Amino acid sequence: MERGSAMAQARIGVTGLAVMGRNLARNLARHGHPVAVHNRTTSRTKSLVEEFGHEGTFVPAETPEDFVAALERPRRLVVMVKAGAPTDAVIDEFAPLLEPGDMIVDGGNAHFLDTRRREQALRERGIHFVGTGISGGEEGALHGPSIMPGGSAESYAALGPLLEDIAAKVDGTPCCTHVGPDGAGHFVKMVHNGIEYADMQLIGEAYDLLRHACGLPAAEIAEVFRTWNDGRLESYLIEITAEVLAHTDAATGRPFVDVVLDQAEQKGTGRWTVQTALDLGVPVSGIAEAVFARSASGHAQVRAAARGLPGPAPSRLEEAAAFADDVEKALYASKIVAYAQGFHQIQAGSAEYGWDVDPGAMATIWRGGCIIRARFLDRIRAAYDADPALTTLLTDDHFAEALGDAQDAWRKVVATAARLGIPAPGFSTALAYYDSLRAERLPAALTQAQRDFFGAHTYRRVDRDGSFHTLWGGDRTEIPG
Amino acid sequence: MERGSAMAQARIGVTGLAVMGRNLARNLARHGHPVAVHNRTTSRTKSLVEEFGHEGTFVPAETPEDFVAALERPRRLVVMVKAGAPTDAVIDEFAPLLEPGDMIVDGGNAHFLDTRRREQALRERGIHFVGTGISGGEEGALHGPSIMPGGSAESYAALGPLLEDIAAKVDGTPCCTHVGPDGAGHFVKMVHNGIEYADMQLIGEAYDLLRHACGLPAAEIAEVFRTWNDGRLESYLIEITAEVLAHTDAATGRPFVDVVLDQAEQKGTGRWTVQTALDLGVPVSGIAEAVFARSASGHAQVRAAARGLPGPAPSRLEEAAAFADDVEKALYASKIVAYAQGFHQIQAGSAEYGWDVDPGAMATIWRGGCIIRARFLDRIRAAYDADPALTTLLTDDHFAEALGDAQDAWRKVVATAARLGIPAPGFSTALAYYDSLRAERLPAALTQAQRDFFGAHTYRRVDRDGSFHTLWGGDRTEIPG
Repeated sequence: MERGSAMAQARIGVTGLAVMGRNLARNLARHGHPVAVHNRTTSRTKSLVEEFGHEGTFVPAETPEDFVAALERPRRLVVMVKAGAPTDAVIDEFAPLLEPGDMIVDGGNAHFLDTRRREQALRERGIHFVGTGISGGEEGALHGPSIMPGGSAESYAALGPLLEDIAAKVDGTPCCTHVGPDGAGHFVKMVHNGIEYADMQLIGEAYDLLRHACGLPAAEIAEVFRTWNDGRLESYLIEITAEVLAHTDAATGRPFVDVVLDQAEQKGTGRWTVQTALDLGVPVSGIAEAVFARSASGHAQVRAAARGLPGPAPSRLEEAAAFADDVEKALYASKIVAYAQGFHQIQAGSAEYGWDVDPGAMATIWRGGCIIRARFLDRIRAAYDADPALTTLLTDDHFAEALGDAQDAWRKVVATAARLGIPAPGFSTALAYYDSLRAERLPAALTQAQRDFFGAHTYRRVDRDGSFHTLWGGDRTEIPG
Repeated sequence: MERGSAMAQARIGVTGLAVMGRNLARNLARHGHPVAVHNRTTSRTKSLVEEFGHEGTFVPAETPEDFVAALERPRRLVVMVKAGAPTDAVIDEFAPLLEPGDMIVDGGNAHFLDTRRREQALRERGIHFVGTGISGGEEGALHGPSIMPGGSAESYAALGPLLEDIAAKVDGTPCCTHVGPDGAGHFVKMVHNGIEYADMQLIGEAYDLLRHACGLPAAEIAEVFRTWNDGRLESYLIEITAEVLAHTDAATGRPFVDVVLDQAEQKGTGRWTVQTALDLGVPVSGIAEAVFARSASGHAQVRAAARGLPGPAPSRLEEAAAFADDVEKALYASKIVAYAQGFHQIQAGSAEYGWDVDPGAMATIWRGGCIIRARFLDRIRAAYDADPALTTLLTDDHFAEALGDAQDAWRKVVATAARLGIPAPGFSTALAYYDSLRAERLPAALTQAQRDFFGAHTYRRVDRDGSFHTLWGGDRTEIPG
């Protein structure tokens, strides 16, 4: 690497060349954008240029100073390091080298509150900090991810064209748009991941029911998922479920899914989604049950202790094909609920932080590149096109009709799971959420009355305004609260 | 108030004389402990002494200096102000006036992480900071609350006798014990509140099912709850549910529960419980569904929009008495699950922070004074007496038998709720949790396989140690992960 090559030749730069950063840099170079590349350990920079230098114009830089000097102004500097302290360290290292108007893009999975903090600190120095959700894993980074940039509109004017260039395209539309100010991009990426958890949990329950309620072998369930993937459930996750279920373990000759230890792991964004939803007062029970199901599966000691607990007498459903149709409907309906909850969270976050996020645009940029990409997202986009102020996805014409059409099957599947002792927390909570919102009256009235009884927390009435308290310990007259 | 009276006459002091602080001070005085009293606004101090001075020895103090001077050494100073910034302000005001060995007791609903921070800061100055959960509301504070003090063992030696004196008593045992170091007391109080949320939600669902599945009027359901309160469900919450349901609104002549707006409120400790459980990796789905049910009830706009969504054809169960028995079993089984989850969280928190909390002792001190007081807690204490290392309450002999006995009814109730369109997220998630832990195999294996497929997150196998990855995009051979 010669230092002389590092003088303002690159349109954008990537620092942090682990697999995500490397693939993002290659994606940029392949699209004709000269890209400066930098890594703390210079061997990674060298090997990137040696292996992939033919794909485009890479400007390797050994030092932060060289790296910054290699960038056109205003500088576009993409940070691809681990979330948390490493991100702060890189910012502290590069910010002093930058000038007002320059942009730092954080492409990691940062918590949106960290992004807000960083954006504010850098804004005071005239530097744009662009927290950017990037979904699609290694393959997505290389071939076209879904990109969710936050930060200022001004920074998007300078960055957007490059990011849209390297994003996935669906029907010619790039899977990238300006989400909103400061932490909006990382917030939306977080909720995307939460929805992904819910989606995977529902698929897992569908598989489990077909396996244990009907006794279908894994390979036959793979066929069921393939069929589903030709219909309204068409999506990347349904597609790979069929692939996984059809796969045979070479070492044992058994279905692959049967040799995998049934303890699911998680990296934290699902948990963040639920924690944030709790702060926002948004019920995201589908995501929560998915996170809990993963953690429950990992408590090996508790499971070992509980394995002998009594269950129902074993029984099998005879009509596997009919039940599979019911499960498809339950899955579709529960999926609508999971997305309705996730979009409710996005709208609540947007209102709380003043981001003005366009929910339909989020559905649009999730149609390609990311893990939850699905035909279904066109339906969500259409719902917000039809009514940009839609309160809940459940009441969109298409979804309401689908829910109405599905509900008998959905209820049957939840009841069957309960009867046969097959855990279906995702299907169950989705149905309970649906029935809660439909309900003319909820037992929340009793809850509120109890709170007034033991804690004088007061209550409101259905027939007049104001807040009231009953003298429960006295003569039980009602007084203003 | 004469300044001269404030010279080392009081065994303990209370600052912050809103209703909780005032009642706690009166409780102390009534038990023969001279108590210094102080409030930022001195009128409150004066009115306390004027109104209740005959109940015992109060030493009113106008200034922080007088207040501190009035206390025997080592000083015991109880802070009863709002959690958050007000607590820090009071600490900052009083700590400089104290000496090594003195104790500040925070009796508010602080977040346990704040308590840990404060305890550490004050420990460095030689002052004991004792974050203390106090449950039972205004009445409890006056007549005997359940008290959960954290902090050092040394501070408990000096404080314990006074706190045990004023705590509720059950069978002669005070509802107060040293929970564990630093934030342990506030942590356990938080989980107590989370369990309270779950308990109330389950009661709400039981009521709702009797009301809407059987068409019973509120007054008849009050009778059902009264009957339940004579059995194993005997508890304060069941008792007051009967009271509330039996109450008639004077203004309208309608059942009181029908005139209360069905939007439940919350103050935050339930939310904290779930957020903390997520950090600890403990599934507390019963508490989470309760928190979500409250927030869902409050989203009036969403509910208004969703009210017209299709439900099942209306139908009624004929056998109300038999169904009420089933609901009792479902309620008891779901309650066992909610407590099992809460105690799992206590054990996980204790392990994480090195508190060495005795779970049986927590059941013991919750038997009186607090909102969740119940005969049931004797069973939990007995479970931990029988096996102090019990992994989960579900497998205790008594509870396992009760669950086995209840399960047919429990499954029927969950299935009926699903079929009739009555939301029962608490009953449903409790059953799903039970069936998850019982399961020989969980679909978590599929989840983990999917994660390996799209993100190379690797998986473990059932038949050998190590971590593995399948080359899904290649020839699908398995390599070490």
